Amino acid sequence: MSDQAFSFRVTHTEGGARCGVMTTPHGPVSTPAFMPVGTQGAVKGAAHRDLESIGAEILLSNTYHLYLRPGDDLIARRGGLHRFIGWNKPILTDSGGYQVFSLAERRKISEEGAHFQSHLDGSSHLLTPEKAADIQAQLGSDIAMVFDECLAHPATLEATEASTLRTLRWADRARTRMMQLRDSHVDGVVVTNKGQAQFGIVQGGVFPSLRERSACETVRLGFEGYAIGGLSVGEPVDVMYEIVARTTPALPADQPRYLMGTGTPEDLVEAVARGIDLFDCVLPTRNARNGQLFTSEGRLNIKNVRYAEDDGPVDPLCTCYTCRTHSRAYLRHLYAVNEINAATLNTLHNLSFYLDTLSRIREAIEFGRFESFRLAFHQRLSRQSGGSEPPECARS
Amino acid sequence: MSDQAFSFRVTHTEGGARCGVMTTPHGPVSTPAFMPVGTQGAVKGAAHRDLESIGAEILLSNTYHLYLRPGDDLIARRGGLHRFIGWNKPILTDSGGYQVFSLAERRKISEEGAHFQSHLDGSSHLLTPEKAADIQAQLGSDIAMVFDECLAHPATLEATEASTLRTLRWADRARTRMMQLRDSHVDGVVVTNKGQAQFGIVQGGVFPSLRERSACETVRLGFEGYAIGGLSVGEPVDVMYEIVARTTPALPADQPRYLMGTGTPEDLVEAVARGIDLFDCVLPTRNARNGQLFTSEGRLNIKNVRYAEDDGPVDPLCTCYTCRTHSRAYLRHLYAVNEINAATLNTLHNLSFYLDTLSRIREAIEFGRFESFRLAFHQRLSRQSGGSEPPECARS
Repeated sequence: MSDQAFSFRVTHTEGGARCGVMTTPHGPVSTPAFMPVGTQGAVKGAAHRDLESIGAEILLSNTYHLYLRPGDDLIARRGGLHRFIGWNKPILTDSGGYQVFSLAERRKISEEGAHFQSHLDGSSHLLTPEKAADIQAQLGSDIAMVFDECLAHPATLEATEASTLRTLRWADRARTRMMQLRDSHVDGVVVTNKGQAQFGIVQGGVFPSLRERSACETVRLGFEGYAIGGLSVGEPVDVMYEIVARTTPALPADQPRYLMGTGTPEDLVEAVARGIDLFDCVLPTRNARNGQLFTSEGRLNIKNVRYAEDDGPVDPLCTCYTCRTHSRAYLRHLYAVNEINAATLNTLHNLSFYLDTLSRIREAIEFGRFESFRLAFHQRLSRQSGGSEPPECARS
Repeated sequence: MSDQAFSFRVTHTEGGARCGVMTTPHGPVSTPAFMPVGTQGAVKGAAHRDLESIGAEILLSNTYHLYLRPGDDLIARRGGLHRFIGWNKPILTDSGGYQVFSLAERRKISEEGAHFQSHLDGSSHLLTPEKAADIQAQLGSDIAMVFDECLAHPATLEATEASTLRTLRWADRARTRMMQLRDSHVDGVVVTNKGQAQFGIVQGGVFPSLRERSACETVRLGFEGYAIGGLSVGEPVDVMYEIVARTTPALPADQPRYLMGTGTPEDLVEAVARGIDLFDCVLPTRNARNGQLFTSEGRLNIKNVRYAEDDGPVDPLCTCYTCRTHSRAYLRHLYAVNEINAATLNTLHNLSFYLDTLSRIREAIEFGRFESFRLAFHQRLSRQSGGSEPPECARS
């Protein structure tokens, strides 16, 4: 770890899209960037060296899961999450808000925070804005997220407003705690990454006025970056795009913008067009394990009998190890006979496709041809969409 | 694939141990060699490139499994097993005898062959010496094994003798079929590897006289190499060593000798000392998935709580990716939270340990210090064996 503080620099723009470099204590990230999801400190089915070989520059990991197992105290004793998992590049940690929200009847939200029962053993826990900041300080991720409240879609304006205001009060508490942690004023918390940044999260559901208010007030609290949360939770995709388009102008142009839990390759292109710099999503990894592969010509389900004797690669335009080495016929066989290598080879391809898509996006913006890239990207997909199937789900 | 015919050359000997080079249509194999087990055309948890990176020169795959799924006809239409799975180095295929034997009450042995019901869907099949040769001709492995009868241990002398004589009659039929296949005289069979070698299998249970008779008569049939089968099936380890020691002198010195389904690292060293050139075993891969790791200091179960805060590598003497990158604490975490990467990282280490052990054995023989290597190997293990646990089982 260097002493490099967190910073962000936009290098090129085209319309709403921009590319740049986000610098963290564990090195730079070229944006727009996709963060593979390593919920429990590992990307399911991909070794770190595989991730590095396909250009991953930053991982996402989850406060909720690591807090329960192996525990943030244990990780702090190991020197922090980077050292514990053997990954020396940047890491962003989700705050646990979304995971606690997903526990449904096993959690109860109060002004103090979220009381919940572990999905593992039913043990009782309390996660507050302060506690989530403390855990992430012990993990020592490069970017910590504030603890937010997530609402199910659909929700009424009244419920969304109340929740959004609570998230704002929580953000205020989280920022206050962050400042205390930076001054090492919190007993019992080992800060394992002095340069950790903290991002606020804009909520507001599908209501533009609430989104704008949430954005303004979150920005007023003064974070190192801003996320848009509470999307990709079941709302129509055009609503999601519209909310993103209405929110990004309210966020500082010189700070990174992170769209949480999104999405399909098409979503990434559209969100970049609306000013997003960072993404995470379980789609490429989870769908890989279920046999659904993303390609330049749309999605394909490798279990389909039509691939049983198909000697071609998953994606003729892809240069990943899986596509260079194996046929659809072999990958279908591996899936059909339940080989573990089906999961790992499919995961490598899907993540390659996502990271490669982001790489193309960055290059297109840099050379001022993002709009033509975007058009060609969608045209190619729509030409082939007859055989394509919808993705399974979005956020973890 | 080259037109290189199968050959074997011993380059160095020390006592009963020897090292050499086995040349196949898909390239050379330095012996003594360990063959990772890729039952269904994939080594569970290790990509081909991982295997190559740790020095694997030959894989084992299984006739029984590939015959059922995806079928040898489909693989022949793909150009053979090498092309189907994307592995361009040597492959040996087991004949299916052991797998059919393992079906217990779902198989019935007659002079013709083995009638059995698929473990997958209960469908009825007949595997004969000729059929097993035909399937392997379609798979196009570099080394095909004859179809043998395997007995459970313990078995009486009478039962073992009857079974051994049947295996000899089957070997005769298998060899006859092989000659017809080489002359392309078998209708409906696509020979995908013209240079395929065929190995005979010595049976005879734990009875030295039967073993010697089986060896002599199998050698008389004239194969390109010879295996010792029916060991590592429950007999005491010293009995196994004794049978190997009594059998290898009855096998040609200028042809490869393969001890099937064995064994622990200690077994490999002892079998090499008794003249064995080739090994396969599911121990390193299967035990890896169960959290048992082989090290220069003995076995360790990574799930043990004692490793929860152990920042050291699995084996301080190992240079594999897993040991270079990850701590016991992290690997224990991955196992505890059921991450797929626990299986892949553990598998990579265990296979590295096996292949590295064989590499050290070859080097020791080459430099005439195998006996001191053997002594040091066992001494190191016995010094540490207090914490070591027995392996789970041997053959697949």
